[in-house]
Amino acid sequence: MAGHRKLRTRFLLFPGLTQLDFTGPYEVLARVPELEIFTIAERAGPVQSEFGLSIVAEHDFSSTPQLDIICVPGGPGTLEAAAHMEVIAFLQTQAPGVQWLTSVCTGSLLLGAAGLLKGYRATTHWLSLDLLPLVGAIPVQDRVVKDRNRITGGGLTAGIDFALTLTAELFGRKRAEAIELVMEYNPAPPFGCGHPSLADPSLVQAVREERRGLQAQRREFLASLKIDQCEAR
Amino acid sequence: MAGHRKLRTRFLLFPGLTQLDFTGPYEVLARVPELEIFTIAERAGPVQSEFGLSIVAEHDFSSTPQLDIICVPGGPGTLEAAAHMEVIAFLQTQAPGVQWLTSVCTGSLLLGAAGLLKGYRATTHWLSLDLLPLVGAIPVQDRVVKDRNRITGGGLTAGIDFALTLTAELFGRKRAEAIELVMEYNPAPPFGCGHPSLADPSLVQAVREERRGLQAQRREFLASLKIDQCEAR
Repeated sequence: MAGHRKLRTRFLLFPGLTQLDFTGPYEVLARVPELEIFTIAERAGPVQSEFGLSIVAEHDFSSTPQLDIICVPGGPGTLEAAAHMEVIAFLQTQAPGVQWLTSVCTGSLLLGAAGLLKGYRATTHWLSLDLLPLVGAIPVQDRVVKDRNRITGGGLTAGIDFALTLTAELFGRKRAEAIELVMEYNPAPPFGCGHPSLADPSLVQAVREERRGLQAQRREFLASLKIDQCEAR
Repeated sequence: MAGHRKLRTRFLLFPGLTQLDFTGPYEVLARVPELEIFTIAERAGPVQSEFGLSIVAEHDFSSTPQLDIICVPGGPGTLEAAAHMEVIAFLQTQAPGVQWLTSVCTGSLLLGAAGLLKGYRATTHWLSLDLLPLVGAIPVQDRVVKDRNRITGGGLTAGIDFALTLTAELFGRKRAEAIELVMEYNPAPPFGCGHPSLADPSLVQAVREERRGLQAQRREFLASLKIDQCEAR
């Protein structure tokens, strides 16, 4: 804890992010008055997410103080973001002094591409779990995975579980309970098939097929970084 | 169904909206290629939500064609939005020709303020259920409530359940199942207290106390409309 000042919390935005990876945990953490929350991106201004929705990045990377909490969402844009040295440099510069370095969904691939999950247990979207070893991380199939000061969440909707877990970690269970209640987080998935272990195998196969191209690109890119064979990128 | 053209779907934005009421269902519906989805507001451009996050409204109300689906999120800003005749006029003009008129959270109070839930069963955030009769609606305590062509969702996170339900209604269960799986919607609320029926009574009481002022304002405003005593506003 950082005394009486607010904890500097930033959500990283980049083109092609999956907006719910970010907006889910934002909704939770914005309800914690002790957090100073801003969106941050390579350039301030509107950032277009995967399906077109534009969200405004309030800050760019210039003159960013040492942050306390960083949360990195995922999405098809993670690959391009990971190829931007400004994004990687921002994460690598902040990482040593940050209290919590976190991600949701394939945001963990971006953290991993920056060499920041090497030797950490971590999770990601179920479609990408097998990619985590390419960045030296130990994949764990769970909604929320904590290892030292890294907390990673699973795909999209897991960001809400992640943020409630982080809130409890920071300010205790009662605080997180109040937010869970206010957010009416008593979910009732209509079809009960929100994980490959629950869904019809043919549906899982169809989703895998549809995503084969993107997953292959991700694999190739992450493998090219050779992160699991070096100390840091 | 409207033949082969895409269904014109709009999410209404207004200052002070609760962004997850909108971003949750947006994430679901944006994955349905048959929907043409845009954000719409009184003025195009960034709209600031409850805790500061700005989301870009792509269209204003001018030259809006007859829409097929309208979704209205809620939030503390609903009260002011309902006092804007331009917003009410937009909803009232579109309502007779729209296929689905929908809301999440206290968005139903805005639909109700426009006189568009009179005689309909509907839901809203649990804190506001008792306000629905003021707009002539019949409150139903459920995550998703469908009555004729109105579908209303409960508070915040219920927007995801709502949108999956709407997807199944429009394009069949299999389509919605695929989205539920891709969104890894296998939620694990960390504390299991996301509804007043599940939470500690003292917590429920504390939340009610904190919101007493806003709820009283809402009650006074909605009562002043005298909607349940007239045919339409």
